[in-house]
Amino acid sequence: MFESYFSQRIKNTPSSFIREILKVTQKPEIISFAGGLPNPISFPQEELKVSMNRIADKFGAKIYQYSTTMGLDSLRQFIVDRYKRIWGMDITIDNVIITTGSQQALDLIGKVFINDGDKVLVEKPSYLGLLQAFCLYRADFVQSKLNDDGLDIEDLKNNLKTHKPKLAYLIPNFQNPTGLTYTAENRKKVFEVIKDENLILIQDDPYGELRFEEGERIPYIGLNENEKNIYLGSFSKIVTPGMRLGYIIANKEIIKMIETAKQASDLHSNIFGQYLISDYLYNNDLDKHIEKIKKLYKSQAGAMVSAMEKYFPKSVKFTHPKGGMFTWVTIQEGKSVTDLFDKAIAKKVAFVPGHPFYVNPQNVNTLRLNYTNADEKTIEIGIERLAQALEEI
Amino acid sequence: MFESYFSQRIKNTPSSFIREILKVTQKPEIISFAGGLPNPISFPQEELKVSMNRIADKFGAKIYQYSTTMGLDSLRQFIVDRYKRIWGMDITIDNVIITTGSQQALDLIGKVFINDGDKVLVEKPSYLGLLQAFCLYRADFVQSKLNDDGLDIEDLKNNLKTHKPKLAYLIPNFQNPTGLTYTAENRKKVFEVIKDENLILIQDDPYGELRFEEGERIPYIGLNENEKNIYLGSFSKIVTPGMRLGYIIANKEIIKMIETAKQASDLHSNIFGQYLISDYLYNNDLDKHIEKIKKLYKSQAGAMVSAMEKYFPKSVKFTHPKGGMFTWVTIQEGKSVTDLFDKAIAKKVAFVPGHPFYVNPQNVNTLRLNYTNADEKTIEIGIERLAQALEEI
Repeated sequence: MFESYFSQRIKNTPSSFIREILKVTQKPEIISFAGGLPNPISFPQEELKVSMNRIADKFGAKIYQYSTTMGLDSLRQFIVDRYKRIWGMDITIDNVIITTGSQQALDLIGKVFINDGDKVLVEKPSYLGLLQAFCLYRADFVQSKLNDDGLDIEDLKNNLKTHKPKLAYLIPNFQNPTGLTYTAENRKKVFEVIKDENLILIQDDPYGELRFEEGERIPYIGLNENEKNIYLGSFSKIVTPGMRLGYIIANKEIIKMIETAKQASDLHSNIFGQYLISDYLYNNDLDKHIEKIKKLYKSQAGAMVSAMEKYFPKSVKFTHPKGGMFTWVTIQEGKSVTDLFDKAIAKKVAFVPGHPFYVNPQNVNTLRLNYTNADEKTIEIGIERLAQALEEI
Repeated sequence: MFESYFSQRIKNTPSSFIREILKVTQKPEIISFAGGLPNPISFPQEELKVSMNRIADKFGAKIYQYSTTMGLDSLRQFIVDRYKRIWGMDITIDNVIITTGSQQALDLIGKVFINDGDKVLVEKPSYLGLLQAFCLYRADFVQSKLNDDGLDIEDLKNNLKTHKPKLAYLIPNFQNPTGLTYTAENRKKVFEVIKDENLILIQDDPYGELRFEEGERIPYIGLNENEKNIYLGSFSKIVTPGMRLGYIIANKEIIKMIETAKQASDLHSNIFGQYLISDYLYNNDLDKHIEKIKKLYKSQAGAMVSAMEKYFPKSVKFTHPKGGMFTWVTIQEGKSVTDLFDKAIAKKVAFVPGHPFYVNPQNVNTLRLNYTNADEKTIEIGIERLAQALEEI
């Protein structure tokens, strides 16, 4: 009845495939590797309860009142201090704006930068939430090949030359959906290739803190060298996603424009949540808390990799994540993950087929598995079921 | 440096004038009638503290985890039950989606309906947050004259005939910025005029519950008769704005599209806040709480009207609000509210000049005053100062 009223942009935007799948897979008998839910153990519940009572007593009405679009100063200062300490960034709170989760950061960047048909370079495969957000601003995507060590440099060069993208969106650490991380060497090469281009480089990093295998943090591409870098971060995977608190770090001129876009989008992010997370961060040891999460995810990822090695046929390949929340599985060429999905659901195990991570999906033989939201035993049972489904296609 | 990168839409969107003014007027010595802040007394702080501890104990990790885009079922059910009881609406929770404040409702509606250049009919003057939100989707606004009893029917007819708008956005109760309310008769006439048009009618109603003068709630335009009605509501003015929780009530087909737009915009609204407000609403008497707010606002509005009658020259006109948070002042023809603003700030009193509420402002001699965030004595002092400033222009 309303078809003729809807905008072109919304008609061209797919509903999130994952969110649709999640509706199907919520039945308790199904073992779901489909979502991207952090393990509830990563929520410091006791400490947050202390903090919520403390901010209620300390700040009174302020935690319930309207607030500024840029976000709570103390929370922005925490981010500044952390990025200064870890990365030596020369920033102030004017370089930081709080967003309603990282997803809103993507929406705001779309608003601020994308005209109809502007080219945006993304990884192949890329995060579907980004594809959905930028699709609403009618971006024209270019997908650049992703190898085990990061972006394929030749493919990147060709894409830059052919398409002259205005923006690039990359997830260099424990990428969603593949779990891959760009090596330091690859990052340097990528920067060499892009540094003289008229390109805004967005690096989304929700998982960077979750490195559970040995190795150091690897610096961002063009860190402290590129004025056109935009960094996205989030408290979703290290404190709580339910508060919907992420942030953008960028040049002040960019942040100013994003502030205007955010005024129009939701005025400001939930201020109670900002006080709560800020109080939690200043009164607890975040790094110690993150160690706990990493230990858990390491054992869960280990359980999934071991089970895949034990049960999957040798022709099936998968990534060995060193952090983050996902592994990426490539089944035999010519087989269909859609068929596999149906068989898997019949066997009471769920995953996300690879399709929504591609701009123009065809003959997709890849899928994403999440390991953070099931215990080790359940992971083994689920992978065994999936192996049985693999035999039936 | 980034000028050439920014999108056309953001370059054409003004930064919120009010939010800029608020930065200037935050000095403690200034009496500000500029903001639209609810009085902190309208936040049930004690009860919310009880609720937050209860939901932490009762729901555990759920209040911190990712959640559904549509919003918490119990909160949507509360809205359904209330609108059924008050308005006899035939709706279910599938007709209701939770938004990150009403401002996000405007952004999502823009995403879902507006193609570049689509005509949108709004009141003259209209809510500046709407003008800003739809400007980002490059709407072409048509402003329809607002009288003391509601929309000017002849002007509305002419606008419909000439411009054939796709959407109309109205605030029938205690309008922002004017404080005016459409009479029941005017609403009937408006519906007679629009009912056969291909028009989606958005009725934004953040203030409807705040009728502090005698009189009944007046039914919405086309209530229960118009499939193309969209209703917006909010908990900001009756519980807390800091949680950023509003909602959209509409036909399921529309809600479904808005859900897709919301997935791409912020995944879902803060779930902790949704549990908190839901718990508060089911365990307290909202109507009783609203009575308290109305009593306060009635005395504050009364103080402002009395002071304006006492101090303002007779040539200055103002609305007599029966509810809501604002009064609208019209100074002498030919005088400039920009001059008045400078004189007023020098005298330590602030207001919002009328400009940002018009699509094409020129020779503006109107201004908005908020009375909910100062006590009666302060209101009188502020109005006296403003009267002195009026004498100087």
